[in-house]
Amino acid sequence: MSSVRRVSHDFLERQGLTTVFGNPGSNELPFLAGLPEGFRYVLGLHEGAVVGMADGYAQATGRPVLVNLHAASGSGNAMGALTNAVAARTPLVVLAGQQVRPAIGPEANLASVDAPALMKPLVGWAAEPACAEDVPRALAQAVFEARLQRRPTYLSVPYDDWSAEAGDNAAAVLDRRVELAAVPGAGQGQRLVERVAAARRPALVLGGDIDSDGLFDDAVHLAERLGAPVWAAPSLFRLPFPNRHPQFQGVLPAGIAPVSAAFEGHDLVLVLGAPVFRYHEHLPGAYLPEGTRLVQVTGDASAAARAPMGEALVADPSAVVDLLLKSLDAPARPAAPYRPVPEPLTAEGPGLHPEQVFAALRDELPEDTAYVVESTSTNAAWWRQMDLRRPGSYYFPAAGGLGFGLPGAVGVAMARPDRPVVAVVGDGSANYGITALWTAAQHRIPLTVVLLRNGTYGALRWFGGLLGVPDAPGLDIPGLDFTRIAEGYGVAARHVEGAEELRAVLAEPAAGPRLIQVDTALTTPS
Amino acid sequence: MSSVRRVSHDFLERQGLTTVFGNPGSNELPFLAGLPEGFRYVLGLHEGAVVGMADGYAQATGRPVLVNLHAASGSGNAMGALTNAVAARTPLVVLAGQQVRPAIGPEANLASVDAPALMKPLVGWAAEPACAEDVPRALAQAVFEARLQRRPTYLSVPYDDWSAEAGDNAAAVLDRRVELAAVPGAGQGQRLVERVAAARRPALVLGGDIDSDGLFDDAVHLAERLGAPVWAAPSLFRLPFPNRHPQFQGVLPAGIAPVSAAFEGHDLVLVLGAPVFRYHEHLPGAYLPEGTRLVQVTGDASAAARAPMGEALVADPSAVVDLLLKSLDAPARPAAPYRPVPEPLTAEGPGLHPEQVFAALRDELPEDTAYVVESTSTNAAWWRQMDLRRPGSYYFPAAGGLGFGLPGAVGVAMARPDRPVVAVVGDGSANYGITALWTAAQHRIPLTVVLLRNGTYGALRWFGGLLGVPDAPGLDIPGLDFTRIAEGYGVAARHVEGAEELRAVLAEPAAGPRLIQVDTALTTPS
Repeated sequence: MSSVRRVSHDFLERQGLTTVFGNPGSNELPFLAGLPEGFRYVLGLHEGAVVGMADGYAQATGRPVLVNLHAASGSGNAMGALTNAVAARTPLVVLAGQQVRPAIGPEANLASVDAPALMKPLVGWAAEPACAEDVPRALAQAVFEARLQRRPTYLSVPYDDWSAEAGDNAAAVLDRRVELAAVPGAGQGQRLVERVAAARRPALVLGGDIDSDGLFDDAVHLAERLGAPVWAAPSLFRLPFPNRHPQFQGVLPAGIAPVSAAFEGHDLVLVLGAPVFRYHEHLPGAYLPEGTRLVQVTGDASAAARAPMGEALVADPSAVVDLLLKSLDAPARPAAPYRPVPEPLTAEGPGLHPEQVFAALRDELPEDTAYVVESTSTNAAWWRQMDLRRPGSYYFPAAGGLGFGLPGAVGVAMARPDRPVVAVVGDGSANYGITALWTAAQHRIPLTVVLLRNGTYGALRWFGGLLGVPDAPGLDIPGLDFTRIAEGYGVAARHVEGAEELRAVLAEPAAGPRLIQVDTALTTPS
Repeated sequence: MSSVRRVSHDFLERQGLTTVFGNPGSNELPFLAGLPEGFRYVLGLHEGAVVGMADGYAQATGRPVLVNLHAASGSGNAMGALTNAVAARTPLVVLAGQQVRPAIGPEANLASVDAPALMKPLVGWAAEPACAEDVPRALAQAVFEARLQRRPTYLSVPYDDWSAEAGDNAAAVLDRRVELAAVPGAGQGQRLVERVAAARRPALVLGGDIDSDGLFDDAVHLAERLGAPVWAAPSLFRLPFPNRHPQFQGVLPAGIAPVSAAFEGHDLVLVLGAPVFRYHEHLPGAYLPEGTRLVQVTGDASAAARAPMGEALVADPSAVVDLLLKSLDAPARPAAPYRPVPEPLTAEGPGLHPEQVFAALRDELPEDTAYVVESTSTNAAWWRQMDLRRPGSYYFPAAGGLGFGLPGAVGVAMARPDRPVVAVVGDGSANYGITALWTAAQHRIPLTVVLLRNGTYGALRWFGGLLGVPDAPGLDIPGLDFTRIAEGYGVAARHVEGAEELRAVLAEPAAGPRLIQVDTALTTPS
């Protein structure tokens, strides 16, 4: 008879979860020790980096990914990173090691008492099977729940379970297949199509899910067919639309009043693949202008239920885009030229203006470069300079939790060896996931890290100004040299001084990972 | 009328919580901006490091400490580090920023929906006040609960609350005083004393709480009066007894069968200030030998309730030690000489044997040096070589969660500028809390970090051998140079080659922080 471990490995293999991101502790060894040939284990030196890498990898492949973590302390280390995965709707399956069954109740060292409770506030589903025989089925549930809910799940397994006999029924799990149907019914579809067709001045708001779901190009067709202006939803984590497309209006500001102002004059706002809305700065006002109706289409039932206004259809945005493309008979408008990029601003002080850095990236790197960005204070400069026309070009920490940038970039680069990948991270952000550099070095991942060093938590300085509290302590972070840190983790590093040197370095071929540190002037997110 | 912020600051000042360890986000700014003159803010670059520093500081001062963290993502980053604070019974008061009240339900960016739920599985008490007026009272409760429970607590405060008016009753909180009485009643005390006096061959087991509670020296008096052998409880996080004292038998092995074997021949085991027991390796057997009775005295009610055997008295160990010292009329045995240290073992390969490193620390550094240790594979070597005779000499991650070592050492050094402080960390461990080096550099903390580099997760290699699963992936960590990493964070660093060079460097005076990297041979924890 097969062991629980053997059946579980077979199941993971059949489901394609053979790349495992992890940081091992003693409880994990019995699962890992028998990992079959076809599996790849990617070690991270901190659990936050492990989850960030897995999140980037899962987003860039569009598939669930297995994460292997230690019990309470190790899983706890990962919880900040998991908030980003939750917001990005990434189907991570976190498998955690638990002490042997008799040692859990008495709280032996490295036991996690009531392990699912620790994770339940964050994940979509968490469990610890009540006996060894239930482990393969529970593992399948963890994978299926992650897919169905598009949310991380958590399974805690006592390490003595892995060598137990799987039981006569265990093989049943290998043939399981669980799918979600989310196409609108005929009546629902017709109402939506009529609604859109009847709109005099519709506006389109696209969320990160549009890119996650592979609808970037379809969204362009839809927008051109509608002739409507397009915004990206506030607090964006994936770019859903080419940012220099003539219809693109930019990322909506993350406040109630400015969002409402943007919609002025539109009778219908169609939101596809986004919560309504992820505001940040509290700027009260009417949610919508007088006479504007909002319809949200999302696969995220919770986002539909909690939204403060509008109608919602919980459905696969892909099905709805298909439906609209088929039903709208208006021909696409003739393509207007993409908007040109402005001259980059320059800085007065010794550092470069971030726009100069981004102009260099845009000019020197291939068009299909994928960027993982975690520099919050340079947000405005970024969108002014970049020209991103491909799906999967932009990733940002979805919950605003720092520590996604470097690890996420490593994960994206491992998932997409066919594309150049660049991490653009601030000197504040980089510290939350710094150890991911080591994994990049060990796997010789061709990743370019552009480290923007302005010596401060720039976005906080800006926000403090908005709140009228400019004097908070703990906002400056001098004395950091990321070239040294990167070298310590095995990554080649350069400090560059001017725009020309930056351009020259970017143009050099690089086989493995490299870090380019550049001092920048302090700018604001908007 | 006073603002909520003003009353809260006043309360914290009166309670002596004026050193704040934090990592700020936008939600925290309104609390931080008004921080009065007498407060000190200690910035950490990652929330795990922030909590580790606060844990070390609180343990070394013996007092509650305020931690200021961001909402879901920031608090999540801290949860691994909090598991150590829970196990060490450290009264950390975590104050987290929350989005403005109207933005929480709709899940605006950086809101933490049901923030207390995220933390409740770990902390002793968690809340988000239902209105601004309740914030000062709730903050007081957070401080008192942390003290009473000796466990971290968590308070989430919407950032619009801080500038609200505090209400007429707010000042009442400033005069509050909450204490815990935990002295045994006369009958309880008498029974315990008689029990101990009647024992033919008693054994004493001391937990980390003995050192946390300032009972290190009293424990020596008690042991000498009893003439009993002394063990430290398994999974030790503070040293409760001089480790070369003639009656000291060492740290109990963390398994059921070997603990039982150690107690063979003793009719009474008196456990003071420890859970019964924090086993780790699962080695089944009888909990106690035939004829051995166990009595546990602990201030931790949960540890008493969950223990699998013995009698327990939930009481202040200090009161019980007093009682026993007063009641036992036997004179103290004449002091036998402390046990000599053996010659350090030497390694065959290029690296030093860890015993050579520890012998150098012992010989070259002052007797009152405090060590924060996070090198699990060198545990046996450590206790063979060290000679620690002072209270507060040894700190170790209490839950076994890596990432306490470097931050904890920074916290201990800030709390005890009167004592030399040394962090002894492995090359695996160091990565979980690496950014604490920056805080050490910024505050010019006179801390010596001895970085033991063996290129592997040594304790896991050993544990894999015990489990018969030697082939797990992800156990090797080559290619790390901590001298570079330390320099990047602003800490002076040296790589040393041999024992003589190590001794010479250790003997050099150091004003600020320094890191000494030394390659070591792989050894096992026991």
